[in-house]
Amino acid sequence: MRTFVIIAHSANAKGDFSLNDLPGSGGRMDLVARCVTSSLFISHSIRKDTNIHFVLKNGIGKEELPRILSFSGENIRYLNPDERSTASLIKNALLQFSLGKNATPGISVRLGNLDDLLRSISDHEIYLLSEDGVDIRSCELDINKNLAFVLSDNYDLEEDEYSQVLKFVKGKISIGPISILTSQCITIVNNELDRHARLGTS
Amino acid sequence: MRTFVIIAHSANAKGDFSLNDLPGSGGRMDLVARCVTSSLFISHSIRKDTNIHFVLKNGIGKEELPRILSFSGENIRYLNPDERSTASLIKNALLQFSLGKNATPGISVRLGNLDDLLRSISDHEIYLLSEDGVDIRSCELDINKNLAFVLSDNYDLEEDEYSQVLKFVKGKISIGPISILTSQCITIVNNELDRHARLGTS
Repeated sequence: MRTFVIIAHSANAKGDFSLNDLPGSGGRMDLVARCVTSSLFISHSIRKDTNIHFVLKNGIGKEELPRILSFSGENIRYLNPDERSTASLIKNALLQFSLGKNATPGISVRLGNLDDLLRSISDHEIYLLSEDGVDIRSCELDINKNLAFVLSDNYDLEEDEYSQVLKFVKGKISIGPISILTSQCITIVNNELDRHARLGTS
Repeated sequence: MRTFVIIAHSANAKGDFSLNDLPGSGGRMDLVARCVTSSLFISHSIRKDTNIHFVLKNGIGKEELPRILSFSGENIRYLNPDERSTASLIKNALLQFSLGKNATPGISVRLGNLDDLLRSISDHEIYLLSEDGVDIRSCELDINKNLAFVLSDNYDLEEDEYSQVLKFVKGKISIGPISILTSQCITIVNNELDRHARLGTS
């Protein structure tokens, strides 16, 4: 199992955004949608062995917990690669959650913070993607284990987030010499794991 | 200079599509927009050494030439990573072209086919991305030269396109064991070139 965890600092956690303005009213919901596509899509198909979770932190009350938005590659239906249709699924899932209802198959929303999410995947070897990490090509990734990769969005991790993540991670991984988009990082990780899988090696 | 060439078989070449329906009325214009983002964007900046060209083939008359839509990383302004705003720039560029006017800085449209486009970048070493190509990690890419990479969209190259491309290419390159999205292929190529550039090696 491959798992991606994205901390989405500005993404609208309530679902009350316009599909015509994902960057603005969605709080960079375009970034969230793009990460779904880059993690789950291959050509003409879906990666059934992959899940992606987002911690959505924006637009909630001071006493409220963030929303954990999860996509399951195995169970997802009606997913297309374009940002708008993915954002539409997200919007619907968040709005249904606020009404106490379930969303589309393969998409779930629950209350929880980063700590809760990382605890729930404690059967994974967890890595933080970071510019000061070990080059992914030199890293011993055991594809026979459940692997998880934690990434931030277009903002750096906040200090308390960084401390929380460090409690769970096995190591820090870098994906190249240039800082690139979150969705692009996911593509590089998937490519590296695909290569390991082909060789059948760790 | 890095150059990407995308043959967009179904993308609407006239610009008369809805921004609310990029996959349908745009003829997978979401894919085109996503390729712009993956080729030109890094975190919080643009790759100034990179251009991307699309051959748009859909919606034109039988006697008409396709449209060549070009983005220049050096000259582009007003570009954001989300699909909708990029598609809006494309729509405007195509509509302005039909009126004989110029588009936004860094975006141009001209009449031409694949052969014309490949001739115009004959100062590049041109590679075709193909599943039966040499692994990009084993390929001797000389980053001191202008390099171009030709990709198809969600359709395979047609037979005549394949023959045309083969006249120009130095070789065929594969980016991994799994067939992935066109935009994801671009990300892998950029990562490989970034790594070469850091090492200062070919």
